[in-house]
Amino acid sequence: MRIGLAGLGTVGAGLVGLLQRAPSGSPLAGVEIVAVSARSRTRKREVDISSYAWVDDPVALAGRADVDVLVELIGGSDGPAKSAVTTALERGAHVVTANKALLAEHGAELAALSERTGGQILFEAAVGGGMPVVKAVRESLAGAQVQALAGILNGTCNYLLTEMESSGRSFEDVLQDAQRLGYAEADPTTDVGGYDAAHKLAVLAGIAFGTGPDYASVAIEGVERVTLLDLRLAGKLGYRVKLVARAERAADGAVRAQVGPMLLPFDHPLARVDGALNALVIDSDPVGRLTFIGRGAGAGPTATAVAADLVDLLHGARRPVFGRLSAAFVAPKANAQPDQPQSCYLRLLVEDRPGVIAAVSNELARAGVSILAFLQDPSQAMAHVPIVLTTQPCARSALDEAVARIASLPAIAAAPQVIPIAGDASGRPRHWS
Amino acid sequence: MRIGLAGLGTVGAGLVGLLQRAPSGSPLAGVEIVAVSARSRTRKREVDISSYAWVDDPVALAGRADVDVLVELIGGSDGPAKSAVTTALERGAHVVTANKALLAEHGAELAALSERTGGQILFEAAVGGGMPVVKAVRESLAGAQVQALAGILNGTCNYLLTEMESSGRSFEDVLQDAQRLGYAEADPTTDVGGYDAAHKLAVLAGIAFGTGPDYASVAIEGVERVTLLDLRLAGKLGYRVKLVARAERAADGAVRAQVGPMLLPFDHPLARVDGALNALVIDSDPVGRLTFIGRGAGAGPTATAVAADLVDLLHGARRPVFGRLSAAFVAPKANAQPDQPQSCYLRLLVEDRPGVIAAVSNELARAGVSILAFLQDPSQAMAHVPIVLTTQPCARSALDEAVARIASLPAIAAAPQVIPIAGDASGRPRHWS
Repeated sequence: MRIGLAGLGTVGAGLVGLLQRAPSGSPLAGVEIVAVSARSRTRKREVDISSYAWVDDPVALAGRADVDVLVELIGGSDGPAKSAVTTALERGAHVVTANKALLAEHGAELAALSERTGGQILFEAAVGGGMPVVKAVRESLAGAQVQALAGILNGTCNYLLTEMESSGRSFEDVLQDAQRLGYAEADPTTDVGGYDAAHKLAVLAGIAFGTGPDYASVAIEGVERVTLLDLRLAGKLGYRVKLVARAERAADGAVRAQVGPMLLPFDHPLARVDGALNALVIDSDPVGRLTFIGRGAGAGPTATAVAADLVDLLHGARRPVFGRLSAAFVAPKANAQPDQPQSCYLRLLVEDRPGVIAAVSNELARAGVSILAFLQDPSQAMAHVPIVLTTQPCARSALDEAVARIASLPAIAAAPQVIPIAGDASGRPRHWS
Repeated sequence: MRIGLAGLGTVGAGLVGLLQRAPSGSPLAGVEIVAVSARSRTRKREVDISSYAWVDDPVALAGRADVDVLVELIGGSDGPAKSAVTTALERGAHVVTANKALLAEHGAELAALSERTGGQILFEAAVGGGMPVVKAVRESLAGAQVQALAGILNGTCNYLLTEMESSGRSFEDVLQDAQRLGYAEADPTTDVGGYDAAHKLAVLAGIAFGTGPDYASVAIEGVERVTLLDLRLAGKLGYRVKLVARAERAADGAVRAQVGPMLLPFDHPLARVDGALNALVIDSDPVGRLTFIGRGAGAGPTATAVAADLVDLLHGARRPVFGRLSAAFVAPKANAQPDQPQSCYLRLLVEDRPGVIAAVSNELARAGVSILAFLQDPSQAMAHVPIVLTTQPCARSALDEAVARIASLPAIAAAPQVIPIAGDASGRPRHWS
């Protein structure tokens, strides 16, 4: 099997290394690189690429008749990545890619093209790095009905939150350090804004729920507004704060997908997943809960995921890109119950004067929101007193209404912080065992 | 794709249900049951099998020309299961099986047969129920070098240990209850003796290390000798006791595989896997650590694993049974370093008289074994005083020598208990993060 490799960053170089070192007897020994393409031909690389044909234009690489499989490691939802992938598929060549943005935003179109020409698209490396979660939802759970997915799918965000907690430093401080160390991009928006996790979620959910990727419908929030104070107060209440990507099928069949900060009870399977690790929990009938934990990024895990896809192609697997033919994609139903009750964390900074708690409680009561736990913590050395409470499961709209009124109370010193809490179907927290 | 189903126990019936309920659009809709075989035709079942041809003899079922795939859910390393599988493969039909004993004991022979005729063997259901761990080691890690596997692969043992801990009852009590409830077999030897976990480990390790299954070389110990006292004392020292199946590649290339009770630090990824759950941790280069947790048995998870294999066959995957051709199996090297240093837990019951601890310590010192932690616990209401200590990493042979001498000290009231502690390469415990 002859491959053309477009993109020679850390993952691309990692793949070249894996293939060059493949022992005889390994199925990888049957994979041959014929040509490569990257932005710079002369950049110093850890691997020797001198024996491969060089092609300046990735689209030209994708069009070469001697390339059976295009490995696309360029990235980006459009531009050269999309052009190269389309070119390869159009002539019936296969594509292995790590490009979640491309699949999340143009997956249905590419799947239809793949079905027309027979060119396969495999993309284990697009989600969860070394965790084989694409295979799990597409292949292992082919006979199951997935009810819900929840994961930590962006290692940068998880690293930042973990660092804040362990070092007691602010989000901005920790981000700057991470940028210096190369753990975060110079423009970190894709990661910290939740967009990368949303791309991955759209791909996974598109397979798991049979809808195909539907990135436009993912509600996206990043980690920027999570403060050190929130991590500490959540900890005192028995929770950790994580950027969680989650999707679930509601009773009416509608799929709701969202990315955002979430409080997880300490015993939640995702609560102890720290640093740059990724994790995914899949609830399905009749398999029950499956949990995956592993390194979600990095040259080694990601290149190994690409290699696994190459071996799959070598062994002749030919499957619908997202588990079913694109004509059989289930149209996502409009969500008839947008306001499923859920417990939330509400954190306020208040001036220390009589009557504040009474005023806050009154506003919540007026909106029909009951309080589950309450903590006023004078131990934080701050100009204003932090007050934190968790609510009983309530409609988010009711809570938001109350919070808007609370925000305008004279004693409130800063914008209130609201973060949902992971819960069971009734919205109650601490259901995990 | 037409299947013949041999075995209609809980998993077989679960599979029939899955296939009968498969929605259109699901790849399972392309799978058709043509004939079934089981011990009793008339036994009451939850699914309707009246539309399938009945065949009394599973070997005759395997030989039917209209059966493209034999699904073997009979079980047992030999007898009708082996005959039926062989018959199917000989005529180039495919086999999907949940039979770990068959694969562990005759895997190499069956793989060679498969290669000769082109009949595929798939067996995701043989290990870890709903956890896709066979796929992970065979496909996802095809480009990686596995260094170590460690798992909780027998749900019955894990259930028994968890129940002992939570209910404070003895192994025998809990086992009797489990037998009454159908969680344990009338003859529990296969499970509690560690043999089931060893079969699964042999299969996984055979793929992961390229050796093919080598059941004969697995060192096997069961959970029978683990007492409630050990669970409690281990807990006081910061450990939980689990039946761990583990295999690792030593520096000299030798593979060591063993099943037995083990102390796991609370923060070990397997330490909190409770009840009937299974889990597997795979350490590989360059993927790092991958952790899987899920339901390791039961009709739903296991039938879904069988269904996944059927879909794989439907999609044309043709692979070497254990990830590489049997001619390329690496001969397992003899283990040149059988005595890798390891920390151990040593529990004694002693008569409360002066000098006992001195005598015990002297024997350990004589054998060159250093003590890591020591606990004399008078809080256990027992006729004799429990003494427990953990050792620094030491050669197991040196410890066993000391323990033999300690056992014959006059104050020692019962046979000493020794259980290894999960550790890092140097044998030190608590290396997990």
